[in-house]
Amino acid sequence: MMSKNVIGVDMGGTKILSAVIGPEGNILGTAKVPTKADKGPSVVIDRIADSIRKAIRKSGVAAESIQAVGIGAPGPLDPATGVVIFAPNLRWKNVRLKEELEARVNFPTFVDNDVNVGTLGEHVFGAGQGFQNIVGIFVGTGIGGGIILQGELFHGASKTAGEIGHIIVKAGGPRCGCGTRGCLEALASRTAMTKEFQKAILKKNKKSIISELTGGDLGAIRSGVLAKAVRSNDALTLKIFKRVTKYLGIGIGSIVNFLNPEMIVLGGGVVEALDDTFLDDIRAAAEKYALPNTLSGVQIVPAKLGDNAGILGAAALARQRIFND
Amino acid sequence: MMSKNVIGVDMGGTKILSAVIGPEGNILGTAKVPTKADKGPSVVIDRIADSIRKAIRKSGVAAESIQAVGIGAPGPLDPATGVVIFAPNLRWKNVRLKEELEARVNFPTFVDNDVNVGTLGEHVFGAGQGFQNIVGIFVGTGIGGGIILQGELFHGASKTAGEIGHIIVKAGGPRCGCGTRGCLEALASRTAMTKEFQKAILKKNKKSIISELTGGDLGAIRSGVLAKAVRSNDALTLKIFKRVTKYLGIGIGSIVNFLNPEMIVLGGGVVEALDDTFLDDIRAAAEKYALPNTLSGVQIVPAKLGDNAGILGAAALARQRIFND
Repeated sequence: MMSKNVIGVDMGGTKILSAVIGPEGNILGTAKVPTKADKGPSVVIDRIADSIRKAIRKSGVAAESIQAVGIGAPGPLDPATGVVIFAPNLRWKNVRLKEELEARVNFPTFVDNDVNVGTLGEHVFGAGQGFQNIVGIFVGTGIGGGIILQGELFHGASKTAGEIGHIIVKAGGPRCGCGTRGCLEALASRTAMTKEFQKAILKKNKKSIISELTGGDLGAIRSGVLAKAVRSNDALTLKIFKRVTKYLGIGIGSIVNFLNPEMIVLGGGVVEALDDTFLDDIRAAAEKYALPNTLSGVQIVPAKLGDNAGILGAAALARQRIFND
Repeated sequence: MMSKNVIGVDMGGTKILSAVIGPEGNILGTAKVPTKADKGPSVVIDRIADSIRKAIRKSGVAAESIQAVGIGAPGPLDPATGVVIFAPNLRWKNVRLKEELEARVNFPTFVDNDVNVGTLGEHVFGAGQGFQNIVGIFVGTGIGGGIILQGELFHGASKTAGEIGHIIVKAGGPRCGCGTRGCLEALASRTAMTKEFQKAILKKNKKSIISELTGGDLGAIRSGVLAKAVRSNDALTLKIFKRVTKYLGIGIGSIVNFLNPEMIVLGGGVVEALDDTFLDDIRAAAEKYALPNTLSGVQIVPAKLGDNAGILGAAALARQRIFND
């Protein structure tokens, strides 16, 4: 019998990563190409098709062994039709990604939101194996998330379920990118941390190794820089992370009180930048805000797939939609 | 063929209401008895059994037409085993309600939390008919809720899902009965409103018709009194309701951003006390806090079953568990 391989595509604003993924989540071959979003959707989709063909060549498997393609794409999209409704970083509006790619590669193609796909990847191949009700929280520039219920992605009535960054944890709190105030994202994302660093260093003249590590450019502090600052026990960085921990704890407490999932998987650049004690701190914070006994059945764990979350999650999507597993 | 009737039991701290419910949610006969919780669980369960027999007699249907009993009970409980883990208002701890009642009435018996059952009732017989993913929010002394996913109650890993009163909407906000701060219940329940009235009337000497309507006893302001004050356009009452509306809007906004259900059903004494414009205000507030397009698929509607929510919800539970409908 032909082995059941699938393609996972992680589609970002600057690069496209495609991979041939075996049944156990083994990565058999990958190809990375620049997205070139400025050339328009048609060229980008050509490039996806090329990267898929390259990945197959590099894997050495027969093209006939490929059963489906999964794509994690940015922006609000319709997972049923595979239409990307709006993706500002690609300058896409209503692009029929599924249909257009199927016309080019002749494999059944399935599309879902990148954070949904990341959460599904953890369920099928990562930290969430064996758990059926999972909330994924990914902390980076923003805070995204996905919800797995009864082993499947839950999309909700408007296909927007999982916008964990926009639960309101502090009414009247800091302004969020979405226009309202006090969203989790406005308090615990890297963007929120950056604002805190700017305030402390530029306005209050606080000393921090961050000034040195960023060469004074506090416009966009990368997760790697944060990790270094934590490892050097920089007081300001630790203080700002303490605040992030508190608000993530509140957000998780709310989710536990409301949905009471079996597992919360925490990932993304900011989480990856930190060591395990950070997770202990988040757990302790969540415990303060969750009702008694509600956390007893809930695991809070770090994501396992790291940089491969995108391709493995997309592969998990393809597998689930075509094999129903 | 024998018609498929069930019994719905609404079990409260002071009274037990039992009813024979026909297939379309028609109430065929009811019986109400005092709970007498002070006499201990065994006597209370005897009284439930008595009320069931009375309701059957009054309905005129044959006992053989009864297929099952559903009970909405207070407190954390295990819906699988029917054990009430803890119910302070009954002074119950680990009471095997299902088993004990089955020994007395010889009908298969199913037990669930009273707010869960209220939400299920709206799904099967009330405002949520035809909708599969529903969040019920009941605003009274506290704020309780239930979650229906794919047409069934969602209990979560620790059987505590739906504690909507304890999502944190204002970190560092007013102290909640649960011990933490800023829960929705601490900002938008009748208890929260009562505190606001006390502060305004007793400490700040504000004038309000509430003083008159309660005879000066601001210890526990009933929903009926609130309704009267609203109808007389009492400025302080309207101001306090405006605050409740805002925080309910924030809570609903968070739920819509996170879970994106098809429908949010609002019930409970505080909601019933008000007219439809209040619901419009809540919708408008939710719109402010929900992300663009997330509310497009979400209905926000008032509960329909009112005082019968308990018995009809319990009947819906019995029907769903025994007929799988």
